Amino acid sequence: MIKVGIIGSTGYAGQELVRILLQHPDAEIVWYGSRSYIDKKYSEVFGNMFQLVDDKCMGENMDELAKKADVIFTATPQGLCGSLVSEEILKNTKIIDLSADFRIKDVAKYEKWYGIKHQSPEFIKEAVYGLCEVNREDVKNARLIANPGCFPTCSTLSIYPMAKEGLIDMNSIIIDAKSGTSGAGRGAKVANLYCEVNESIKPYGVASHRHTPEIEDQLSYASGEEVLINFTPHLVPMNRGILATSYAALKKKMSYEEVKAVYDKYYKDEYFVRVLEKDVYPETRWVEGSNFVDVNFKIDERTGRIIMMGAIDNVVKGAAGQAVQNMNIMFGLEENTGLKMVPMFP
Amino acid sequence: MIKVGIIGSTGYAGQELVRILLQHPDAEIVWYGSRSYIDKKYSEVFGNMFQLVDDKCMGENMDELAKKADVIFTATPQGLCGSLVSEEILKNTKIIDLSADFRIKDVAKYEKWYGIKHQSPEFIKEAVYGLCEVNREDVKNARLIANPGCFPTCSTLSIYPMAKEGLIDMNSIIIDAKSGTSGAGRGAKVANLYCEVNESIKPYGVASHRHTPEIEDQLSYASGEEVLINFTPHLVPMNRGILATSYAALKKKMSYEEVKAVYDKYYKDEYFVRVLEKDVYPETRWVEGSNFVDVNFKIDERTGRIIMMGAIDNVVKGAAGQAVQNMNIMFGLEENTGLKMVPMFP
Amino acid sequence: MIKVGIIGSTGYAGQELVRILLQHPDAEIVWYGSRSYIDKKYSEVFGNMFQLVDDKCMGENMDELAKKADVIFTATPQGLCGSLVSEEILKNTKIIDLSADFRIKDVAKYEKWYGIKHQSPEFIKEAVYGLCEVNREDVKNARLIANPGCFPTCSTLSIYPMAKEGLIDMNSIIIDAKSGTSGAGRGAKVANLYCEVNESIKPYGVASHRHTPEIEDQLSYASGEEVLINFTPHLVPMNRGILATSYAALKKKMSYEEVKAVYDKYYKDEYFVRVLEKDVYPETRWVEGSNFVDVNFKIDERTGRIIMMGAIDNVVKGAAGQAVQNMNIMFGLEENTGLKMVPMFP
Amino acid sequence: MIKVGIIGSTGYAGQELVRILLQHPDAEIVWYGSRSYIDKKYSEVFGNMFQLVDDKCMGENMDELAKKADVIFTATPQGLCGSLVSEEILKNTKIIDLSADFRIKDVAKYEKWYGIKHQSPEFIKEAVYGLCEVNREDVKNARLIANPGCFPTCSTLSIYPMAKEGLIDMNSIIIDAKSGTSGAGRGAKVANLYCEVNESIKPYGVASHRHTPEIEDQLSYASGEEVLINFTPHLVPMNRGILATSYAALKKKMSYEEVKAVYDKYYKDEYFVRVLEKDVYPETRWVEGSNFVDVNFKIDERTGRIIMMGAIDNVVKGAAGQAVQNMNIMFGLEENTGLKMVPMFP
Repeated sequence: MIKVGIIGSTGYAGQELVRILLQHPDAEIVWYGSRSYIDKKYSEVFGNMFQLVDDKCMGENMDELAKKADVIFTATPQGLCGSLVSEEILKNTKIIDLSADFRIKDVAKYEKWYGIKHQSPEFIKEAVYGLCEVNREDVKNARLIANPGCFPTCSTLSIYPMAKEGLIDMNSIIIDAKSGTSGAGRGAKVANLYCEVNESIKPYGVASHRHTPEIEDQLSYASGEEVLINFTPHLVPMNRGILATSYAALKKKMSYEEVKAVYDKYYKDEYFVRVLEKDVYPETRWVEGSNFVDVNFKIDERTGRIIMMGAIDNVVKGAAGQAVQNMNIMFGLEENTGLKMVPMFP
Repeated sequence: MIKVGIIGSTGYAGQELVRILLQHPDAEIVWYGSRSYIDKKYSEVFGNMFQLVDDKCMGENMDELAKKADVIFTATPQGLCGSLVSEEILKNTKIIDLSADFRIKDVAKYEKWYGIKHQSPEFIKEAVYGLCEVNREDVKNARLIANPGCFPTCSTLSIYPMAKEGLIDMNSIIIDAKSGTSGAGRGAKVANLYCEVNESIKPYGVASHRHTPEIEDQLSYASGEEVLINFTPHLVPMNRGILATSYAALKKKMSYEEVKAVYDKYYKDEYFVRVLEKDVYPETRWVEGSNFVDVNFKIDERTGRIIMMGAIDNVVKGAAGQAVQNMNIMFGLEENTGLKMVPMFP
Repeated sequence: MIKVGIIGSTGYAGQELVRILLQHPDAEIVWYGSRSYIDKKYSEVFGNMFQLVDDKCMGENMDELAKKADVIFTATPQGLCGSLVSEEILKNTKIIDLSADFRIKDVAKYEKWYGIKHQSPEFIKEAVYGLCEVNREDVKNARLIANPGCFPTCSTLSIYPMAKEGLIDMNSIIIDAKSGTSGAGRGAKVANLYCEVNESIKPYGVASHRHTPEIEDQLSYASGEEVLINFTPHLVPMNRGILATSYAALKKKMSYEEVKAVYDKYYKDEYFVRVLEKDVYPETRWVEGSNFVDVNFKIDERTGRIIMMGAIDNVVKGAAGQAVQNMNIMFGLEENTGLKMVPMFP
Repeated sequence: MIKVGIIGSTGYAGQELVRILLQHPDAEIVWYGSRSYIDKKYSEVFGNMFQLVDDKCMGENMDELAKKADVIFTATPQGLCGSLVSEEILKNTKIIDLSADFRIKDVAKYEKWYGIKHQSPEFIKEAVYGLCEVNREDVKNARLIANPGCFPTCSTLSIYPMAKEGLIDMNSIIIDAKSGTSGAGRGAKVANLYCEVNESIKPYGVASHRHTPEIEDQLSYASGEEVLINFTPHLVPMNRGILATSYAALKKKMSYEEVKAVYDKYYKDEYFVRVLEKDVYPETRWVEGSNFVDVNFKIDERTGRIIMMGAIDNVVKGAAGQAVQNMNIMFGLEENTGLKMVPMFP
């Protein structure tokens, strides 16, 4: 039984970790961390957990946690994990960080986009970017995982095969993404009130969203080129789900079958990546509540571009699910253990 | 491994049966029945099932089905199950009928409220009303289960302890219920289009809804009196969930603790019924995707009435989940096998 | 041109006042009051007002306001209007208070249900309860209007004809109401976040909601009896709209036609009250954005009860629209001036 | 008083025409056409119109209509208007066609994208493309207006100033659009049911949507170049609204102020086009129920691209509102007569 501590268990991603881990056959939660709700029963914060979780919320005593837990998930705002990690801690336990603290290898880039000083740059190099389908081997032996962002997961996996094979013009990439509102977190802000989000769609972080350098890094690693992209997220009136619609110029004319073969090369053995049938496009409803990434593409012969689309559940494959997938890999379990949830519809 | 056939697998309740049974450790689906989609791949009808179900939809060849399946679920419109059942079939297999065909013991009453002639009244007496928490013993040996309606499940379980103990005036009961739109089915009707349902709430079937006699029957059995109620369902712009708010006059003044003891008497050992803490009321979001029934009550000393509230997921405890719970009981499994899904939020 | 000042113009009701008054032929807004956004441009708070309103938000300097404005609308939390009103002010201007401060004639009752001390009980007697269809004559000469609450407006108008004519048992009344989320206000609270409200329905304020005594008072005035009711509001995932479903025992058997005649007696000349056709029930979508109240009823012969239903747009007839209707009456305008908005669908 | 006939008055666009025209000071509806609901009261089809419209639905007797009406709006499926128009008709009345029949000047292109044979190609040349802000002068004297599509209106107006001034690489344009569900029409289809649309976002018509050639034509006219674009619409779970996010490579480096001056050159005197403040992006909620087009842009210096964004209400500026705007121009009225609706929020 893997003993799990969660720091930040009362955000949406934290709560999803709880939901998943309660149903995981080989894991047990030993620490429900939450600064905001210390000493409050977890099931009072999330009524779905009534009679399923009896624990109270606790602060983040890292020394105690490191002794108790085989692995710690940090589902916390940027900067917190960076301030908590230490060699001492990592000798005793593993950390899977759901924040951005260890995703960007270039500390100056991190500090510029996130506007904060990194508290433990010495661990950035060691940290493994936990995009499981791409970095599986490195994840196996990692002590510290930088769990990917929701948009980067969806965008990168949609584009990866074409980037890796060098088939698209890497500086022609435009990613137009749409996210459900759980991605905005559980903080009490007017902008996220029901009446403000409902019946509307809006772009945000235009040409400035923090996931931009993360996506660019991953696409650069895949293609071996320095990549600059346009990335525009939009807020959609729904709870869960991300859809990324990505556009790129094909370097040469390709048929559907040729591109399909490229996607299959990378994904046909991946349990969580489903390359859809021809002319069937990803829809977030078909992955809701699951760890699946549905991807597909369309070639536009008129413009010479390819449209690459991907859909995930942002709190599962985009956060808690992928974190557990990383845990499974790190602890030598079957990668989909506890993650075979059938998407829930409607 | 229990071999399961589903007739009507392409409605919302049928699809939920598939979702649940795919994750059930002791069941295997051998027949995806659907008149509307014969020969179409099931995963083309429901994209969430892509790479999880390879089968095609089939018609309802009952002889073949009865041989192949240990149990048949009929998630079909009223009248169909009644037309399919026979002694021959029931000798070979069990039937769990999610329609209303065998819920009303008085055939005249059924025919009046449903406006159709019953095709096999000879099986009505044998059929067991599968409200598991109430009729568990009878379910164990049943060949034919009348799986309860969504509103009756939620309403009856909310009121049952008070009715059974004779503590409320049975003819003062008013049930005001609110349902998500999946309860309206997957038929292509203007009234159920997104733009018609969204941003609105409406009552329907006022003083005439077909679940009225079903609820009245159950409350009559519980109380030993002939009961007439008011029942008003409302359509709510959400996918899943039923909330029933029920009002009744208390026969005598009672304290919170006294009423709580009554609820606990019936439900404290029930896995699926959660009696909430004082002054915490049921909300459908806390049971979504699960088989839980959350109930609670409030005494209004000013008016001498008790308000009894219950929340379920209409396609789980209100349909497919309870059907599987019945299957578990009939086949001697732990009652919550494959049904321990943690409610999904948000 | 009526010069209008609005205190509390940046809540949902305040903003709706602005929307309506901008399109009113005889009114002009001279003061956009808002403590929270002083000196911020109004159109930065509400983007819909871009290029329509150039004013900045201001505090509530009552002396200045009373000189500038012919009428002041206070769309503010309970207690504020009570603390601002004075003989001095009322000599110079009229006040239409959208809060509860002057709705309850019994100051002790007000203080008990609202939990605050009333700041100006000397004006309670003078204040006119602005339920226009009922108190039109008194409104004409009022200096201070207590604009009715959203639930009381919808509930009272649904029940009024039956209560006034003495046809129902007044102590059998149960009102089960459902409200869109704009009724919860624009404050930044976790409970009102998109992901908390969406895909759920919940009761709140069970047997304790502050609109209870207001409804009881109005029904008492109508019937001439002391009335106690059960009132249960529910939060619905939609922006606007209230549906009230009310139940009462008929004192004697009545036909549809007889009851219809009673409703017509009171409402057939009312522009804003629409008594629907037989068996057509109110739906909030059909009144959205308008000042209409749609009402209808159904007699249940089995139980001897009548179900009375009403639908309004909570921010129009339930708040800003009715406030403007009161203004029209007070200033001798046609009652529906600036209020003939056709309901917007979908 | 302009006498108006509407063919196709029971679709969402047709109903919006009714809503707008009922509030128009100089227009009167004399014909509520609807093949599907002949002889049914219009207010039974749309409950919001109860007591506002007494008329019954009628078929499309063009001869009679041409005599009765000064202008006919056809809010009908592709092909119908083309089959009804004739010199005879146009001698007696004007036609504003909300379908695509007369939008594409090249009949072969129309027939290829729409897959039907054009019934009256002889009128294509005469027809004026009613994008008011661009073709105002031609609209004045037109007999036959091709009212623009919803996506083309939003996309073209977002991009127009940059295209007209030759500041962007016309073959680099990618338009990623998001639409509310009313755009899918009121037909009874499973794909548009509440539970299918809610809680999901999906792309559709990828690289094949029929609005593509219409947008390309307009951008070609503006720039004087043959333009090919990528256009991807997405279905969003909301009733109304279109957001178009468009990407293009700037031909040369430009500052915010330079681009702003370009937008102001075209739009500063346009009542319905609102160029937002710096770093404020269009959101559909701020234009709901109104005829406004909110536009803005962001320059991404890193990639050398400009992101141009626009938001409209698809049934107003994207259909009925623009149609009435065209009517106003054709009949010499102030262009915003009856169209000054303040956007409704929330």
